[in-house]
Amino acid sequence: MFVYADNAATTSVSKTALDAMMPYLTEFYGNPSSLYAFGQKAAEALAASRETIAACLNADPKEITFTSGGSEADNQAIVSAARLGARKGKKHLISTQFEHHAVLHTLAKLEKEGYEVTLLNPHEDGVIRVEDVEDALRDDTCLVTIMFANNEIGTVQPITEIGALCRERKVLFHTDAVQAAGHTPIDVKAMNIDMLSISGHKFHAPKGVGVLYARRGIALTNIIEGGAQERGKRAGTENVAGIVAMAAALKESCDHIEENAAKIIPMRDRLFEELGKIPHSKINGSLEHHVPGTVNMCFEGIEGESLLLMLDDNGICASSGSACTSGSLDPSHVLLSIGLPHEVAHGSLRLSIGEYNNMDEIDHIIKVVPEVVAYLRSISPVWDELEKGTRKHLI
Amino acid sequence: MFVYADNAATTSVSKTALDAMMPYLTEFYGNPSSLYAFGQKAAEALAASRETIAACLNADPKEITFTSGGSEADNQAIVSAARLGARKGKKHLISTQFEHHAVLHTLAKLEKEGYEVTLLNPHEDGVIRVEDVEDALRDDTCLVTIMFANNEIGTVQPITEIGALCRERKVLFHTDAVQAAGHTPIDVKAMNIDMLSISGHKFHAPKGVGVLYARRGIALTNIIEGGAQERGKRAGTENVAGIVAMAAALKESCDHIEENAAKIIPMRDRLFEELGKIPHSKINGSLEHHVPGTVNMCFEGIEGESLLLMLDDNGICASSGSACTSGSLDPSHVLLSIGLPHEVAHGSLRLSIGEYNNMDEIDHIIKVVPEVVAYLRSISPVWDELEKGTRKHLI
Repeated sequence: MFVYADNAATTSVSKTALDAMMPYLTEFYGNPSSLYAFGQKAAEALAASRETIAACLNADPKEITFTSGGSEADNQAIVSAARLGARKGKKHLISTQFEHHAVLHTLAKLEKEGYEVTLLNPHEDGVIRVEDVEDALRDDTCLVTIMFANNEIGTVQPITEIGALCRERKVLFHTDAVQAAGHTPIDVKAMNIDMLSISGHKFHAPKGVGVLYARRGIALTNIIEGGAQERGKRAGTENVAGIVAMAAALKESCDHIEENAAKIIPMRDRLFEELGKIPHSKINGSLEHHVPGTVNMCFEGIEGESLLLMLDDNGICASSGSACTSGSLDPSHVLLSIGLPHEVAHGSLRLSIGEYNNMDEIDHIIKVVPEVVAYLRSISPVWDELEKGTRKHLI
Repeated sequence: MFVYADNAATTSVSKTALDAMMPYLTEFYGNPSSLYAFGQKAAEALAASRETIAACLNADPKEITFTSGGSEADNQAIVSAARLGARKGKKHLISTQFEHHAVLHTLAKLEKEGYEVTLLNPHEDGVIRVEDVEDALRDDTCLVTIMFANNEIGTVQPITEIGALCRERKVLFHTDAVQAAGHTPIDVKAMNIDMLSISGHKFHAPKGVGVLYARRGIALTNIIEGGAQERGKRAGTENVAGIVAMAAALKESCDHIEENAAKIIPMRDRLFEELGKIPHSKINGSLEHHVPGTVNMCFEGIEGESLLLMLDDNGICASSGSACTSGSLDPSHVLLSIGLPHEVAHGSLRLSIGEYNNMDEIDHIIKVVPEVVAYLRSISPVWDELEKGTRKHLI
């Protein structure tokens, strides 16, 4: 049995998205910047996609900039806010310890340029507290950037409240919504969001396309200079087919958020329930504030990487954390940020379930994971010490 | 009759490219950074694409970085060279007046940061002279960036000689080869090229994917920070399907360069011959050093935009210059750079022919263009003055 349980890493391209993009990979290949009708056909598709995506977020089409993905959108949002801030002498940015590296590394770059960055710690439940944001705000704060849903543990942050606080304090608020878009409702107006990043391939569009929403009046700084595409804010011939697919996929996902959640949550809960029976296991992140599909657990005494490889042998695609850092041997910075000791964080497993999964697949996972954990513990010197009592259980 | 004669703006996706990418839009949707075999399938496709593209350029696969297109590659190459230069106190860059805006605007950004930029003028034939580059080189020059083939007039620059000069003077040499790749042979080693930019959609791959070649040892500066993709030099989940298509398309184009040129050049030459018969017309750019498909001409007394719209009415897709600036009412900076007066540059037409065109289509263009030019002149007050002798002919 093959079970794809890594939908937080990437998703399959939906039939809707593929059908929508195919004409732009075949028949309508014109350049949207061209004057002639054949090029304008592509321009119209871009305009329609922009409207669709704006509607999904309750934004204005003019507030939508197409990018090559979530990382580029994160980079551009943060750099733009930093440059705007610098002009007013405001060079302090607030974020969190458990952001995606597209955010953390951009902040690190700005730090080298003389900006100051405060990284808040999420609490043990994987949720940032509004009070902590409030305490960190300074007169020279130019941006608060806090992810909508964490990519490893799936916890949803109090976006509306943080947004309201930022608006009151006249500080820009950006959220990396890569794990949220299409999975949980987003309303940039109601949620007081100034800037927001999205990545198409997390909701059944192809890889290589994303969106930066920026509220009207926020002047973006170019990351890519050149032609006048995207109102001069993002140069380069537009990925027309990818953008059309992304719009179709986002609309489909947003139209079915509740229906999909109703399908996914019982699968996720069954995973938590059954895998939670494994001794010395731990569920990471509060289930109270959570995207539907993400399951993150730690199993003491084992290495996450070995677990993944053995799950792979059993046809299960899963990850220990973010795919973007899976080459790294360090434990997840997300799990460390919510207070897990290194030894525990090493034994992590992320299963991310989507609407294309089914209960048979969940049954397969529930059968395999405990067997693999038991096997890995049987050959683990650490587990041996834990069993003998020469090492103390941490969970 | 529908004639697509704007292949320098973008090209149709070839069957080869589409067939190559389809499995990665459907079956093999894994994230290449994932550890499991299903993700590694995508990673293998990336590796194979990297090898294919490297082979087409006589580069090493490790020297290939995938980007979202030519503009991003240009930005990254120039910024990287600038940062490397700055570390050694070298903050002077040399380029040309007729580069693509992805180059010119990046240079302008660096100028604002305190770098100095020298922009060389091409000669009337649309070719940069090596001596001019030599004269411009200074002890603090950190980069020479000169396009391989001009996007509007199709002239090919003395890349090998400029590269040799730069290597001798230990200055990095970048070339924007967006209009050259797949159309004229490129050998980065033999041509002494340190960095080179490519855009897939100019040779029958989809839009939204490109390549930055950087010779081993040249440390790239990230334009997009985040995950460890592309050896940490370009973050963001890779556009796997687009990259696979680009590799297939580049290989197909490079394998057929001579065959395609043998098909295209007679079409181009017939256009030059027949359209050159229009009185007070002018061919822009030397035909001696030229990519196969590009035809750029000016017709006195008319507006390029009106010409394009009337060609469109007759089923012909063409441009007045680069698609990226087609919203602009200014005459082409390329045509001004080769010494054309504003009035003449306004009446420009670029026809860019590809291997999918045929002689019937050329016949259609040859029939329509003279009729349209004659009509536009018949209603042009400028042409009236030229005819009456109250205004002087410039061509």
